[in-house]
Amino acid sequence: MEKNYRIVGKSVPRVDGVEKVTGAARYAGDLIFPGMLHGKILRSPHPHARIVSINAEKALRLPGVRAVITGKDGPGTLFGFLPQTRDRLALPIDKVRYIGEEVAAVAADTPEIAAQAVELIDVHYEVLPAVFDPEEAMAEGAPQIHSHVKNNMSAETHMNFGNVEEGFAQSDLIREDTYKTQEILHGFIEPHAVVAQWGPGEKVTLWASKQSPYIVYRNLSRGLNLNPSQVRIIQPHVGGGFGGKHEPFGLDFAAVLLSRKTGRPVKIVLDQEEIFFSGQRRHAMIIHVKLGLKRDGTIMACQMKLIADGGAYASVGQLSIYLPGAFLPLPLRIPHVKYDAYRPYTNKPFAGALRGHCIPQMRFALEGLLDVMAEELGIDPLDIRLKNAVQSGETTVNGFKITSCGLTETIEKAAESAQWREKRGKHHRSGSKVRGVGMATNSLCSGARLGGHDASSAIIQIHEDGAASLLTGATDVGQGAMTVLCQILAEELGLDLKEVMTSPIDSEMTPLDPGTYGSRVTFCSGNAVIAACQDVKQQIFAAVAPKLGTASESLEIGDHWVYVKDHPDQGMPWIKAVREAFYAKGQPVIGRGTATPGTEMANFITGEGNLSAAYSFGTQIAEVEVDLETGQVRVLKFIVSHDCGYPINPALMDGQLHGSVVHGMAQVIGENITYMDGLPLTTTLTEYGMPTAADAPVIETIHVNTNDEKGPYGAKESGEGSMISTLACVSNAIYDATGVRIKEIPVNPPALLRALKKQAAEARR
Amino acid sequence: MEKNYRIVGKSVPRVDGVEKVTGAARYAGDLIFPGMLHGKILRSPHPHARIVSINAEKALRLPGVRAVITGKDGPGTLFGFLPQTRDRLALPIDKVRYIGEEVAAVAADTPEIAAQAVELIDVHYEVLPAVFDPEEAMAEGAPQIHSHVKNNMSAETHMNFGNVEEGFAQSDLIREDTYKTQEILHGFIEPHAVVAQWGPGEKVTLWASKQSPYIVYRNLSRGLNLNPSQVRIIQPHVGGGFGGKHEPFGLDFAAVLLSRKTGRPVKIVLDQEEIFFSGQRRHAMIIHVKLGLKRDGTIMACQMKLIADGGAYASVGQLSIYLPGAFLPLPLRIPHVKYDAYRPYTNKPFAGALRGHCIPQMRFALEGLLDVMAEELGIDPLDIRLKNAVQSGETTVNGFKITSCGLTETIEKAAESAQWREKRGKHHRSGSKVRGVGMATNSLCSGARLGGHDASSAIIQIHEDGAASLLTGATDVGQGAMTVLCQILAEELGLDLKEVMTSPIDSEMTPLDPGTYGSRVTFCSGNAVIAACQDVKQQIFAAVAPKLGTASESLEIGDHWVYVKDHPDQGMPWIKAVREAFYAKGQPVIGRGTATPGTEMANFITGEGNLSAAYSFGTQIAEVEVDLETGQVRVLKFIVSHDCGYPINPALMDGQLHGSVVHGMAQVIGENITYMDGLPLTTTLTEYGMPTAADAPVIETIHVNTNDEKGPYGAKESGEGSMISTLACVSNAIYDATGVRIKEIPVNPPALLRALKKQAAEARR
Repeated sequence: MEKNYRIVGKSVPRVDGVEKVTGAARYAGDLIFPGMLHGKILRSPHPHARIVSINAEKALRLPGVRAVITGKDGPGTLFGFLPQTRDRLALPIDKVRYIGEEVAAVAADTPEIAAQAVELIDVHYEVLPAVFDPEEAMAEGAPQIHSHVKNNMSAETHMNFGNVEEGFAQSDLIREDTYKTQEILHGFIEPHAVVAQWGPGEKVTLWASKQSPYIVYRNLSRGLNLNPSQVRIIQPHVGGGFGGKHEPFGLDFAAVLLSRKTGRPVKIVLDQEEIFFSGQRRHAMIIHVKLGLKRDGTIMACQMKLIADGGAYASVGQLSIYLPGAFLPLPLRIPHVKYDAYRPYTNKPFAGALRGHCIPQMRFALEGLLDVMAEELGIDPLDIRLKNAVQSGETTVNGFKITSCGLTETIEKAAESAQWREKRGKHHRSGSKVRGVGMATNSLCSGARLGGHDASSAIIQIHEDGAASLLTGATDVGQGAMTVLCQILAEELGLDLKEVMTSPIDSEMTPLDPGTYGSRVTFCSGNAVIAACQDVKQQIFAAVAPKLGTASESLEIGDHWVYVKDHPDQGMPWIKAVREAFYAKGQPVIGRGTATPGTEMANFITGEGNLSAAYSFGTQIAEVEVDLETGQVRVLKFIVSHDCGYPINPALMDGQLHGSVVHGMAQVIGENITYMDGLPLTTTLTEYGMPTAADAPVIETIHVNTNDEKGPYGAKESGEGSMISTLACVSNAIYDATGVRIKEIPVNPPALLRALKKQAAEARR
Repeated sequence: MEKNYRIVGKSVPRVDGVEKVTGAARYAGDLIFPGMLHGKILRSPHPHARIVSINAEKALRLPGVRAVITGKDGPGTLFGFLPQTRDRLALPIDKVRYIGEEVAAVAADTPEIAAQAVELIDVHYEVLPAVFDPEEAMAEGAPQIHSHVKNNMSAETHMNFGNVEEGFAQSDLIREDTYKTQEILHGFIEPHAVVAQWGPGEKVTLWASKQSPYIVYRNLSRGLNLNPSQVRIIQPHVGGGFGGKHEPFGLDFAAVLLSRKTGRPVKIVLDQEEIFFSGQRRHAMIIHVKLGLKRDGTIMACQMKLIADGGAYASVGQLSIYLPGAFLPLPLRIPHVKYDAYRPYTNKPFAGALRGHCIPQMRFALEGLLDVMAEELGIDPLDIRLKNAVQSGETTVNGFKITSCGLTETIEKAAESAQWREKRGKHHRSGSKVRGVGMATNSLCSGARLGGHDASSAIIQIHEDGAASLLTGATDVGQGAMTVLCQILAEELGLDLKEVMTSPIDSEMTPLDPGTYGSRVTFCSGNAVIAACQDVKQQIFAAVAPKLGTASESLEIGDHWVYVKDHPDQGMPWIKAVREAFYAKGQPVIGRGTATPGTEMANFITGEGNLSAAYSFGTQIAEVEVDLETGQVRVLKFIVSHDCGYPINPALMDGQLHGSVVHGMAQVIGENITYMDGLPLTTTLTEYGMPTAADAPVIETIHVNTNDEKGPYGAKESGEGSMISTLACVSNAIYDATGVRIKEIPVNPPALLRALKKQAAEARR
């Protein structure tokens, strides 16, 4: 069914586009306030050490230095995602747990003086034994990083669905293997930045680069021993988040404590090197996977043991290891699942959420091993996915209720467009270069309950000239959320996009909204905007119904036109209707609306429960070229086929799908941080291997629209789900090209050359 | 009846008090933005001249100069208060109409460069004949200042109520006289200041010192040929308004046009000299008053002809001359009224609203002549006022409906406290100094409909910790409005004041509210806050009623306690109720409320209609000491007795009453601007004669509480009404001391000495 909307479903330009391309958009680091000071952080040189004493006398004597703070300036209250995993202080007081952890901070008249001053702070450490390997950290006798847990276990999860023993018993082919993935950064272009202003009274205001001010203000207030309402977050433009900006970090606390001490606004902006030295990042993982298949390719059982390197703090770690387990049987059906995951602490920067939140790593292992087994069974990877593809109406073994589901269509359309049957297994060779194709699937929630209050809300104010202002706590971190919400508002009220205005988040003015995580914004905040529009309509209709000689319920809104549903010509212009409401009733029109994720809380320990009201589905096919002489991998082309229900803005949706490809392929063939005894040796994005636009493959996107019943205009997730399949997809393509099974990423040229040589040697045997 | 509230009715400290006394509060002039430029205005040296050409080449060549704008950079659209009185452009294009009018403006890297650059702009003028005296301006053949009106008449009003001829025919004593008042400044300590940022898109944001952002954005948008919603006003702290900051001024337009030209934020802050050279101020007036009294003192008729010097533009002039007429029969009853008022243009800075908005001048004439006549009739000024005091339940001859009214009580209590009977007419003399007492009465509206949408609104958001954020478009210009609104909110929801937060006005985020004028804030915005609280309660009650085993309607809120009305111990803590609403229903609590002034529009031309839903009443008694040798007047003591219904914050109410005394007495005995051919010779506050704290008399305040039925907690006007009687009160006291009748203010020592000499000479005759 083709829908015909005025603004929704159209690739309108971003509402913040002009601002951003002209450089007018202001980010936290751009802000200037009267009397503002500049902060700089002193970081630990040791991966694990007791802080014996800190002497800041020399620093304080440096002209232009206004204050020095340490962890002792904080209240000493722990904060964290779940009550049982609260393990962080504003700044550490007694000991440091990774190289780069914040130990003290200086506020000075200029950034240069502040940088000079931190060097003058004398810290006396008592160095402790450290542990960097997650398996070693779990072992008996390892150095203990936190005293409140045993064996450094920050979180663990044990799921048991169906009967995995029985599942394997019914299988014709059982294989198991171990896959390893590295840690990666979020790669946002705007570094962490904050300006904090203490006061008036026992309050603090932060202008901060955050993707979820609501979660930040909760945790900041715990770490500062304040009530949430005493922490006000105002959000400037944000230059990318990807899961990495929904927690408070050392710089936030340092800026607050420095401002409290000086009474002046304090700005701290991290440089890229500092980001390499501090939390948070994607969990590195060791994944043992065992899979049982019927001869016909039906997946019968999966057992997985997953070890995630948590780094020094818990962060959202309980969720991080819940998600790979919960999404094991999605989007490829698995009737029997056993999943055991462990997230030990290590003396490294801590890990947390990053686009796809740990599910891509799981998928890399699962769909890698699946391809190995399909080959053994003589089944095309395409067919084995089609065979096991989950369908609308099913409930997964752990209770995920599948409503709209276009998975099969995404697989078929991707395969067709990629000429899968023609290209797969052909090892097309030209000179030293060989080509191959790989495929993988993905699914993700569209928002989820993560505890506490987690409804999105919207307030709409109508101006006397008929324009509308939208107040929302939803966060645009660059993904275009505001554009999508403005489109929905304009469509609902029959306005043009330029008549819709949004304001930056201000936790004291904009309504509560959990912000950008869990792929919730379009789904939850979009529904909240629709609810607020309905509230607006109700007020306008009540005011004009008598004039139009009908009842409120008979009225509808079209293009700047309020009319009787059954007689579209019988109506009045929107502006006249607005004025009628304003002047006749003598009061302005304010609409409010809220929308919950629409589910109950899932159990993050046992994995039970339906996480989301709507799941997205997708398939990716990559075509790669491997140079057998150099080991260099080039990703030539990507087909990304995605069921986001209905794209409110197809161009923005494409932007997300493009991003998922580049973001994900970089983890397979490039990005890496090298450590030496906990010291990151990689300190620039160039060394790190972040791809640029020039590295991007040709990307073709396919929108499979399933018009989800509960999504706004049928829309569901599109921001991060697609990346879930990218690791598996690229590594499966490398296998198709070379016959080398990638079980550890990143795969760099020397590693691939070694593997190719080993393969050749085995072939000769 | 004694009321017992937790927070309302208590003299709690101002919510912005600490900020202000510690210097942390930021005013528009304090703001800094990245890339900000500084603007300076070139002003006309001629009172009336055609602009032949403007050459800015030299200015533009000065290093650091970024742009020059003139009136031609504006769209050439007129704006103004009423459609028929739109006579102002962003900046004048063809001609200037007063010395100091804005002709061009420069944006430069520093204020110093900008100041240097304006001197380099060459303007070629053709000087036109000018007129400065309002009576001359009305005469045939006077230079015509605006082409759209004849005889320079910017506004006139003719009221006829009862039958004034008949009233005089029934009178036993008829007298008439002419009174004159000077123009004065508002005397705000913070000068006009603005930062404007054009864009993104066809939008502009202003951080501006305004007392009514809503009215400003309407007029700004007209002058810029934009829609109101394209102009966003964000209000920092405001250092006083007094009626002088609800219009856009040349600096606002100049900053906008300079920002549009440069793409950068532009700040303009006026210095005090510029304020003496530019609009707006209090109308100077010539008032011919004729009064008819019965022998027993009953006022029978009043005829008044009032000429208000409008200066070069209309401003809110139609309202300015409506108000003195409309308030003629209040608070002293007059059954027959004829009122003719004229507001001619002259070649001077324009006049508009100022505390009491033209009513004090009328009262100065009326209650001056009344005292003269009372003396002739042998009646004590106290008794003649008691005799004619309007009472609750009456309707004035022009239709003002008097509901709560404590006038008689204010007169009696003031007289008792001042020992009126003992002191009046005693001419107590000590050396060359003689003392006397004077009395006058006042009444004012508590908000009024002034056209367009004029409801106040409030949005309240409840935080998860139970605190509440209030969004309101009401403006705190120093009077303490936010404190009063927070007290109301805290009282309604059973919170402590520190749990209530307010945010600065932002026309894109805070709800529409006409702002601070017409003494409307406590009454209208207060009622809006109550309505929003009721909305909050409804949501909370609905969520917790099942838990408390009762219906929503049976619930009430006390001190952090939600309970069953009839069983106050049966309840739950507020925070638990909030969480119940948040978590059980999964959505945050947002309350909204609006409140209109509660009346129909009065007719500003004919004077008909009930202006306000509630009128305040008050009496002032001044005790002055006149040095017969020097002519110096010292105001020793003031008794201010005021019926504001019920003071939400008695200390803030006292602050207002104190202010009315000092503000008003200054107009009688001090403040004055000397002109020479339209050139203000007075350019500093010292020359001008603004009193300081040291000049303030002893002030005793009396609160007469009438608990207005429609006012929030019974409250009505308290901000400006009291000043209405001050001019009359002080001049009546000077008469009582010296026998000299003050008919022209200000009365400076030489003038008073001359009058004393003349009086002595007459006495000798």
